Amino acid sequence: MTSDSRHSWKDSPAPASPAQWLSRAAEVAEILGANAAERERAGGSPDDEILLLKESGLVTLLGPRDAGGGAASWTTAYQVVRRVAQADGSVAQLLGYHYLWVWLPRLWGTEEQYKRLETESARNGWLWGAAVNPRDNDVVVEDAGDGLVFRGHKSFSTGARVSDRLILEGVLLDDSGQPTDRRVFGVTPTDAPGLKCHANWDNMGMRLTESGSVDIDAVRVPWTDALGYTAKVQEVRPYAGITTLIHQLVFVNLYLGIAQGALAAAAAYTRSHTRPWLNAAGVSSATEDPYILAAYGELGTGLLATEALVDRAVAELQTVHDDPGGLTDQRRGELAVLIAAAKVQATRVSLEVSSRIFEAMGARATAAVWNLDRFWRDVRTHTLHDPVAYKIREVGDHTLNGRIPEPGWYS
Amino acid sequence: MTSDSRHSWKDSPAPASPAQWLSRAAEVAEILGANAAERERAGGSPDDEILLLKESGLVTLLGPRDAGGGAASWTTAYQVVRRVAQADGSVAQLLGYHYLWVWLPRLWGTEEQYKRLETESARNGWLWGAAVNPRDNDVVVEDAGDGLVFRGHKSFSTGARVSDRLILEGVLLDDSGQPTDRRVFGVTPTDAPGLKCHANWDNMGMRLTESGSVDIDAVRVPWTDALGYTAKVQEVRPYAGITTLIHQLVFVNLYLGIAQGALAAAAAYTRSHTRPWLNAAGVSSATEDPYILAAYGELGTGLLATEALVDRAVAELQTVHDDPGGLTDQRRGELAVLIAAAKVQATRVSLEVSSRIFEAMGARATAAVWNLDRFWRDVRTHTLHDPVAYKIREVGDHTLNGRIPEPGWYS
Amino acid sequence: MTSDSRHSWKDSPAPASPAQWLSRAAEVAEILGANAAERERAGGSPDDEILLLKESGLVTLLGPRDAGGGAASWTTAYQVVRRVAQADGSVAQLLGYHYLWVWLPRLWGTEEQYKRLETESARNGWLWGAAVNPRDNDVVVEDAGDGLVFRGHKSFSTGARVSDRLILEGVLLDDSGQPTDRRVFGVTPTDAPGLKCHANWDNMGMRLTESGSVDIDAVRVPWTDALGYTAKVQEVRPYAGITTLIHQLVFVNLYLGIAQGALAAAAAYTRSHTRPWLNAAGVSSATEDPYILAAYGELGTGLLATEALVDRAVAELQTVHDDPGGLTDQRRGELAVLIAAAKVQATRVSLEVSSRIFEAMGARATAAVWNLDRFWRDVRTHTLHDPVAYKIREVGDHTLNGRIPEPGWYS
Amino acid sequence: MTSDSRHSWKDSPAPASPAQWLSRAAEVAEILGANAAERERAGGSPDDEILLLKESGLVTLLGPRDAGGGAASWTTAYQVVRRVAQADGSVAQLLGYHYLWVWLPRLWGTEEQYKRLETESARNGWLWGAAVNPRDNDVVVEDAGDGLVFRGHKSFSTGARVSDRLILEGVLLDDSGQPTDRRVFGVTPTDAPGLKCHANWDNMGMRLTESGSVDIDAVRVPWTDALGYTAKVQEVRPYAGITTLIHQLVFVNLYLGIAQGALAAAAAYTRSHTRPWLNAAGVSSATEDPYILAAYGELGTGLLATEALVDRAVAELQTVHDDPGGLTDQRRGELAVLIAAAKVQATRVSLEVSSRIFEAMGARATAAVWNLDRFWRDVRTHTLHDPVAYKIREVGDHTLNGRIPEPGWYS
Repeated sequence: MTSDSRHSWKDSPAPASPAQWLSRAAEVAEILGANAAERERAGGSPDDEILLLKESGLVTLLGPRDAGGGAASWTTAYQVVRRVAQADGSVAQLLGYHYLWVWLPRLWGTEEQYKRLETESARNGWLWGAAVNPRDNDVVVEDAGDGLVFRGHKSFSTGARVSDRLILEGVLLDDSGQPTDRRVFGVTPTDAPGLKCHANWDNMGMRLTESGSVDIDAVRVPWTDALGYTAKVQEVRPYAGITTLIHQLVFVNLYLGIAQGALAAAAAYTRSHTRPWLNAAGVSSATEDPYILAAYGELGTGLLATEALVDRAVAELQTVHDDPGGLTDQRRGELAVLIAAAKVQATRVSLEVSSRIFEAMGARATAAVWNLDRFWRDVRTHTLHDPVAYKIREVGDHTLNGRIPEPGWYS
Repeated sequence: MTSDSRHSWKDSPAPASPAQWLSRAAEVAEILGANAAERERAGGSPDDEILLLKESGLVTLLGPRDAGGGAASWTTAYQVVRRVAQADGSVAQLLGYHYLWVWLPRLWGTEEQYKRLETESARNGWLWGAAVNPRDNDVVVEDAGDGLVFRGHKSFSTGARVSDRLILEGVLLDDSGQPTDRRVFGVTPTDAPGLKCHANWDNMGMRLTESGSVDIDAVRVPWTDALGYTAKVQEVRPYAGITTLIHQLVFVNLYLGIAQGALAAAAAYTRSHTRPWLNAAGVSSATEDPYILAAYGELGTGLLATEALVDRAVAELQTVHDDPGGLTDQRRGELAVLIAAAKVQATRVSLEVSSRIFEAMGARATAAVWNLDRFWRDVRTHTLHDPVAYKIREVGDHTLNGRIPEPGWYS
Repeated sequence: MTSDSRHSWKDSPAPASPAQWLSRAAEVAEILGANAAERERAGGSPDDEILLLKESGLVTLLGPRDAGGGAASWTTAYQVVRRVAQADGSVAQLLGYHYLWVWLPRLWGTEEQYKRLETESARNGWLWGAAVNPRDNDVVVEDAGDGLVFRGHKSFSTGARVSDRLILEGVLLDDSGQPTDRRVFGVTPTDAPGLKCHANWDNMGMRLTESGSVDIDAVRVPWTDALGYTAKVQEVRPYAGITTLIHQLVFVNLYLGIAQGALAAAAAYTRSHTRPWLNAAGVSSATEDPYILAAYGELGTGLLATEALVDRAVAELQTVHDDPGGLTDQRRGELAVLIAAAKVQATRVSLEVSSRIFEAMGARATAAVWNLDRFWRDVRTHTLHDPVAYKIREVGDHTLNGRIPEPGWYS
Repeated sequence: MTSDSRHSWKDSPAPASPAQWLSRAAEVAEILGANAAERERAGGSPDDEILLLKESGLVTLLGPRDAGGGAASWTTAYQVVRRVAQADGSVAQLLGYHYLWVWLPRLWGTEEQYKRLETESARNGWLWGAAVNPRDNDVVVEDAGDGLVFRGHKSFSTGARVSDRLILEGVLLDDSGQPTDRRVFGVTPTDAPGLKCHANWDNMGMRLTESGSVDIDAVRVPWTDALGYTAKVQEVRPYAGITTLIHQLVFVNLYLGIAQGALAAAAAYTRSHTRPWLNAAGVSSATEDPYILAAYGELGTGLLATEALVDRAVAELQTVHDDPGGLTDQRRGELAVLIAAAKVQATRVSLEVSSRIFEAMGARATAAVWNLDRFWRDVRTHTLHDPVAYKIREVGDHTLNGRIPEPGWYS
């Protein structure tokens, strides 16, 4: 992706409908896809990619219209993430996580907070990241009177280093400096004093997500930018309870999109490069080989089923965004089960697709120049975010016992 | 199912909305489910069951309102079939096929024909069957001037023996008595002279469908009841082209419904009968066993994905019913691929569910009194209707080559 | 199986080598296979079948040569069970269990006991059964001075009703009549006073095994026929520790044999009855259909892998029979893991084969006259004997942690 | 692998038994395994690795004893390949291919040829490679009177660049320079004039095999080193007919060994690094997590079944090496089917193991420093050598129709 290969949207009007946003996402995907193989091999910091997300306007999709945002629905956001993931899983991850983090004030903050922060974000075209990892108690938060002070370290933080605004999260300390069971969020400029984001993400997949570690050395966040713990009062609406669900559904759309991209890339390869097998009597083209057709049929079926299930989960979750006040615990739980099932399904199918496509392309498709293993490496890496076995268990507990999962950072 | 256990709907108003139809279907399913195991073991002719379908009004669901029908959509019809299938696969098959056959005049006939036949059918609460099997050229049709004469034999004909009206189908002969490549349908009372329906269906599954053979000995059908070949002119609208798709989607809903019924029956069994395994340290109830939960989670996930895909296919096909004139070859083809994928998915998942549930119930669930193998026998029998391998191939040919299937009796 | 269709071996010399025993087993399998479908449908008591096992000499395979037995190895016994299972799973189960029970004195008794009992058994051509089910504490044993008295009830007891000698098993009571943690076996004639074997086995598979319940009303067993607890001293050699392993390997050979029989039956059907699919362009015979070939290839591969693994387990266990004194706990544990793996593999493959064969035969193969669902019903029923999930866990615990299973009634 | 980390075997006696050879292979594997992750990431030419194969004596395993070789069986050679593959798939591939190529004179040459070449090879510790790819007709061979002249280009040639001796292969030209249907081999020093081996292998897996392309510019091979076409007479014994089978079984042992290595590496990781999942109530260690145990159980079972099948194929093929003259077409064909089945099984299981292990290790195992994706990349790359779908078909054609594969370069 070089600057001259990039479309300029400066003179174009902003997308004004879901269809236009998807069309914009498709343009972005086309640009990303043109050299996705090379970029992924090269690794490095996704600076150009983030510029693309900003110039295309995709970062403002959820923002308020009067600040230049798209005021689009989460349904559209998920479709955009999926579309971008077809071309580049890492960039789609950065975008999907951004949508969640920029939405966090809406979930955990006051009306004043989210209106102000969303407006600023849309107006400036910010990308949001976060240093949040609830499995570790490695950041503590002190109530410093006029604000909060965060101290600690996070091992992984998607997009932190390349973001404009960063969500911090930690365990609140009590007056005697002992950890409480309260967790609190803070919004901070990524270049705030005391923050240091490292470029030490070096994993087998999702290589361009810049998900390195973050050192947090006495970073001050004023009360106005503290979420979930405002003016010393913990104020959380039921709507905040779907934070995890929104996030998990970002993951699911990532897996689906990457798998769709893998299958499309494989089909293009088979059509243009794969030679008919010499023992395939009577078949003059690989595209007529009965077993290659069977492979595409099986993988294609799996993707269609996954897409239908994911779309259903997206539509169901949208009803909560449309009526946050109507959310009950039971409804939240049923959504959690549906999203868990979508994650299980997307995990399995994306792994199968990204591994089996090679059987439909043949040995030469393993040449490093094509970099076609990136799809498997991407989904294999991210689908481990939290164990799929426990998602299966949640679906099972609902199927057998009618139970819903305990709300938490993973369910 | 004894007569005294049956609800009487005589004094109830007919259902007036999709929700009311589904509620009626649920009542029918409850009655059928109460002794489904015994009835299936006993085999025999489903006379009581058909009476139930008639008394409940389900047979008139698609009929015109002014004739007492429900004027419901195919979307509702499929949901009703699925709901009944959860309790009894055979009865659901009879009902689903009935919906197709009573709709055949709408697909292949003139406006006069379908209005007249649908009205008569709803008014009299007819059940329709058919002696149609396009894989065999075993029935020939002679143009006898004032009508058509059918002669031959069909090996399988779901519900023929217990129907009120029967669709005949055969190859038209030319003037010299040679077969042409035209196929023609005729509608006839099942008790017409020359028709003999045998009770010789004896298969390992779908045992109550009365799908025996039919002898057709010079059965006369007047021009008014000949479909697809009227007044010596072959008149077929594009809408007729979805006949196969409607039918295949009946199958898919059958498989899904049976599998849902199997999983629900298994869960009820596990909750009430399964003992915790003695080596399952720390687990005091089978409902907490990690592997039993995993089994329900995997099967439940498969069913949720299947349901979402089937619902999507139903919704897409409904758009054709809503605007038959707008159907193009390309649109028909894409629907065929989507329905093929749904069939592949439903076939696989229903077989897996109906076989693996036993692992979540334990050895005692194999007692004949429970008859829990009927779910597997039902889906294993019907999913062979046409080879799933060729459905996979169709999906593959579309995924890889963008091709759509040739319209035919199976695609 | 009618008497006139049965080969008489009266004038034949007894088999004298493994190959001859396998040849004899093949003859028995041929007789059983000739009408296995009808016999299984009819159900009832397997009296003729047991006569066949006796007349063919198969029941004496393990017996001492000087009493007319074959003095064959367990390796040969397993192959014979597998070969018979290819034709009739129920009869193979009766035979396999018989081999275990007739061997029980060798495992748990004194030298005097097993020499005497094996000699009597071979001389009289006895079939052995057992009323043993360690999951229930439903039989208690009183030390009556001159012998033991068994009282209670067993729900399942393979072959009890049709056996000549029966193994009883129960929990020993102490002097105050309270249950101890000791279990003790007794050998008794099946027609002993107080014993009542019911013909109430009515399950979806293994229908001819006569595995009904047994009432045990004060059945006396003299000390000479008490095993594992002799003259008030518990005497058990390490060799007794493989009782469960021998039994589990009988199961595994049953599943493998049934699956091999299913695949062979299917292939015969496809070759003689399956019609080429009309959409299978260019294929004039079902035996050339690429997808039917693929199905046989996948199922055949699964069976070859299973057979190799089962043969390995059989060979390894044989080394213990060849040198019982050399058995250590560690060695026993490793064998248990290997046999557990064989059971997992055989369970999965036999279920897959017996269900998927239909896809390679087509819809007409579901006609009840073929009774081809009996293979699936047989393996689905018996593979639930103890949960395969816990066998998988045992293999996993060894793979990950190097642990061996605790010896018990299932491991 | 640095030179100082390498064990010196200079003063050790050569291994003298299969057990000693396996012990030697284990030492080599340990050295390779110590830094396999880093070496694979770095890529480059496997010069040190080949030195290790030579210094350890593994390259002479099959050579004549009086020339310093091990005179070991192919059974041992396969076990050695498998053992090395557990640590390093690329090096095992180089070694396994070497065993085939150094054996080629025995298969295709005269007694004088193979005795001479094997002796020289063992004495000098040569590594053999080959420029053979029967799918392409890209090398032609001219009969130049005193020898043969090879001209052309091969795209892939495992180990050519780092070998001492190279097998060339091409299509023989007739007197008028037209290609015949005869293929001929020649043995040449790798540094012969006209030979140019490129270091352009750059694929996603098997990265250290140096399988680049070879330019063959009028390379002269004397008659004494021409195989399969000697003194203008095509002399091929039936034994040559198993060349493909030997090679395919090298592949199978590679896949098995890599998968075994992957599972062992994963288990070590889980034991030392994986944290218990926070939602896994009651489990204080990842090694006790029921789903992690299940994963290891499933993967372990698959590997045990595969190992048993591969060992069976190895043992069966060994009988041909032990009695080459006894080989019939039917026997060859049955061996080909067995090896095909082993390849299908090993392909599936190695792909599943190398992908699913991550679920038992958790997200942090994707850190690039561990390089644990190399197992999947290695097997995914090599298992495409020839399409597994056609191997499945061969097994199916034998299972259904009793046919054996046509001997060729892939079967």
